[in-house]
Amino acid sequence: MDIESYSQEKTGVLVRAWGRVKALPDKLKTKVVSTCKSIKKLGQDDPRRITHSLKVGLALTLVSLLYYLRPLYDGFGVSGMWAVLTVVVVFEFTVGGTLSKSLNRGFATLLAGALGLGADYFASLFGKKGEPIVLGILVFLLGGAATFSRFFPRIKQRYDYGVLIFILTFSLVAVSGDRVDELVILAYQRLSTIIMGGATCMIISIFICPVWAGEDLHKAVASNLEKLASYLEGFGNVYFQSSEDDGSNVISPKDGKTLPKGYKSILNSKNSEDSLANFARWEPGHGRFRLRHPWKCYLKIGTLARQCAYQIEAINGCIRSDIQTSEEFKNKISEPCKRMSSECGKALKALSTSIKTMKDPSPANSHIENSKAAMKDLKFALKAASLEDSDDFLAIVPAATVASILVEIVNCVEKISEAVNELSLQAHFSKTVEPTVSPEKSQQQQQLLHRGIIQPVFEADDDENNGNVVITIHEISTDSPENQKKPTKE
Amino acid sequence: MDIESYSQEKTGVLVRAWGRVKALPDKLKTKVVSTCKSIKKLGQDDPRRITHSLKVGLALTLVSLLYYLRPLYDGFGVSGMWAVLTVVVVFEFTVGGTLSKSLNRGFATLLAGALGLGADYFASLFGKKGEPIVLGILVFLLGGAATFSRFFPRIKQRYDYGVLIFILTFSLVAVSGDRVDELVILAYQRLSTIIMGGATCMIISIFICPVWAGEDLHKAVASNLEKLASYLEGFGNVYFQSSEDDGSNVISPKDGKTLPKGYKSILNSKNSEDSLANFARWEPGHGRFRLRHPWKCYLKIGTLARQCAYQIEAINGCIRSDIQTSEEFKNKISEPCKRMSSECGKALKALSTSIKTMKDPSPANSHIENSKAAMKDLKFALKAASLEDSDDFLAIVPAATVASILVEIVNCVEKISEAVNELSLQAHFSKTVEPTVSPEKSQQQQQLLHRGIIQPVFEADDDENNGNVVITIHEISTDSPENQKKPTKE
Repeated sequence: MDIESYSQEKTGVLVRAWGRVKALPDKLKTKVVSTCKSIKKLGQDDPRRITHSLKVGLALTLVSLLYYLRPLYDGFGVSGMWAVLTVVVVFEFTVGGTLSKSLNRGFATLLAGALGLGADYFASLFGKKGEPIVLGILVFLLGGAATFSRFFPRIKQRYDYGVLIFILTFSLVAVSGDRVDELVILAYQRLSTIIMGGATCMIISIFICPVWAGEDLHKAVASNLEKLASYLEGFGNVYFQSSEDDGSNVISPKDGKTLPKGYKSILNSKNSEDSLANFARWEPGHGRFRLRHPWKCYLKIGTLARQCAYQIEAINGCIRSDIQTSEEFKNKISEPCKRMSSECGKALKALSTSIKTMKDPSPANSHIENSKAAMKDLKFALKAASLEDSDDFLAIVPAATVASILVEIVNCVEKISEAVNELSLQAHFSKTVEPTVSPEKSQQQQQLLHRGIIQPVFEADDDENNGNVVITIHEISTDSPENQKKPTKE
Repeated sequence: MDIESYSQEKTGVLVRAWGRVKALPDKLKTKVVSTCKSIKKLGQDDPRRITHSLKVGLALTLVSLLYYLRPLYDGFGVSGMWAVLTVVVVFEFTVGGTLSKSLNRGFATLLAGALGLGADYFASLFGKKGEPIVLGILVFLLGGAATFSRFFPRIKQRYDYGVLIFILTFSLVAVSGDRVDELVILAYQRLSTIIMGGATCMIISIFICPVWAGEDLHKAVASNLEKLASYLEGFGNVYFQSSEDDGSNVISPKDGKTLPKGYKSILNSKNSEDSLANFARWEPGHGRFRLRHPWKCYLKIGTLARQCAYQIEAINGCIRSDIQTSEEFKNKISEPCKRMSSECGKALKALSTSIKTMKDPSPANSHIENSKAAMKDLKFALKAASLEDSDDFLAIVPAATVASILVEIVNCVEKISEAVNELSLQAHFSKTVEPTVSPEKSQQQQQLLHRGIIQPVFEADDDENNGNVVITIHEISTDSPENQKKPTKE
């Protein structure tokens, strides 16, 4: 019995093991397939990643062969290693990053090498016994002081890598213990190989499919404004539409009427913007950007965009509120609120386009004026409103909150517009000439909008509806027959 | 005349130059003094920066002397350099950072060294002419692939440095071009010196004034909750007090009644929390933290704290609103709003204390219950309210918004409490036994609070008033005589 159960157990174990072995190829296959998929996705998300990898491989191969084919460059000897080391450590994704690290490395090596030689000479004055003690003290003091200096925000931001290389080179040179004249040759060899490695990186990163940190920052800030715009353009219709449709204040995902969540990525964008701006300062003039492009202005716009995103996050909280909102009250403020939100969205989109195309941001001004006029209308509507029906205060709180935060958003968008204007002045954006729009016409258009008609289809810039929000206009105002000429976009 | 003016000009230039030279020592002195001051401040802000600098100096000196006193360690030869290099590059501020880099460096060197030897052997099969071509292709392929792998978020987060060292070592070993048996000796020497450097760093960083990333994360999350608490505890009294005092809704900075701005630092805390959590995973158990402490829970609490900070940012916008708020309406909702805000603050303070002391977070529950009860009271008050006076809707919007966002904050604080509870379960916080508070008493206290009496002085935890917010209670309710026993804190 025991033996039988033992043999049965043994068979069971074998069967299970065999099952596992049989399943192994399938498992492996799934794993490989999923890894391949994620590699493909990573490459598709940003094809520059692939070119970057190829560029690093190229730089590495060039410098390695230089090192391998020693007979050709016998002057460098074993120091050729430093060229390989430099390429691996210095080659960054963006041109600015590569330049910042290369230059930091070069100058730090030069400075620390000279100081190290001085320290060596100074220590040799103390005789054979005193030398290691003096060198030890010097390395301790300079290493500690340089490490401490890395805590200074200014140094941390720009010269962190340089300080690191300074400590490294100083220690290496100071304690290498050779005679000073030999050291000079060694230092010369090292410096020249480091320069060779750094130059290879800089040339490849600048001339082969360059990734400019400045351009990335420029695009990131513009796209952040666009994300905010997409939300705001959609918001008014989604929040106030549902009440007109079926009386429920639940945002339904039907008909593609969900609000884009793109703005969420703005909430934590500070660090990446800071580091891009930091790298951008190291870059030479390229494309549309001069050497001293006002990168700081982008950071200011970024900060204001984050402020706006915080407000949107608060509005999102209100939408999810479980308090039943009074439909009467909502209808009363619906018109100016919708206008505030959509005009803010249009203004942001115009500002984003202005940044992208580097053209005068003045087209946004009329939208901002419109949103401010809508804000006044809202105040007027609120002043005129009264509790005619059975509604209590509780029922008006969510809508009132939305209105109040929209007012904050309007103020915020105005500030963003000022910041973009400052950028356009400092970066000399080109002025756009608009001869077709006479002052009277623009005045009239503004007045029309002031009277409460939403005309997204007839706006000058027609490409504003191709974001991920489909604005559906259900209420076609009858007092302007033009509105029936074109079908509304669905 | 010309000569005279020329000589006058010359004298003028000389006088100005002399003035500048005379001013130089003063300028230099001011510069030195200001630099010294900023150094002192940097050290005072976090004295661990000074100890860290000394630790790096010490490690560097130890390893440098090892390299200098070559006769003692003749086996290492010029490879001793790698020990210095390792110390400089690997020594980070936190133990976790140092361990992560040391281990990454060690294992990557081992793996890449072995692969490099293999590549060397493989390439030698192709003869003298084919060798450099095969090696070049191998370096290109592996360098490119490894660089691409650094874009994977998981690898970037934990093994970025390891991949860097992998590329470095592989290229160096593959192209060093010596015979394989010589290379093995070289690789052994390098690996042993790297291990020596890494071990020095690890030992010094763990045993001399260690800075644990895990503990920093723990403290940072607790202090973030406390910052939110400080704001919320102060908010109710500051916002609703002024209306009772002088009828203006402007927040005046008199009497120290400004609200603490500490919460602003939470808005952009994501990156630092992420990197601390990442380093914490590499740390061994230390102090109150086991090896597998649930660091992920801290990130969850951090995210919720940021959510709460966004809401506070929105509330701050309302406070600054220029709309004249109706005092009648404000008074109607003042009591429940004040209670919501202060109870949320107390709950957050209790949760923060619970994290700090690693004790059961249940003391916060009663505050959360109180805040939810106050929320219900608010809804009740809003339902009951009516527009008796000449007030219009506009005048109630700011206060209604504040109330509405406070409701969101209550919900957010509840979620934070759940997250802290999860942390307390996973990290096995010690249970506190509270024999003195019987269920009836706690029920009674809650009921009392439910009736609208603010008793910050009589609360169990007395240290909650020593933040930077002074809560002044002007309205002593007369229905409980106990309130007159003690003077209120000013």
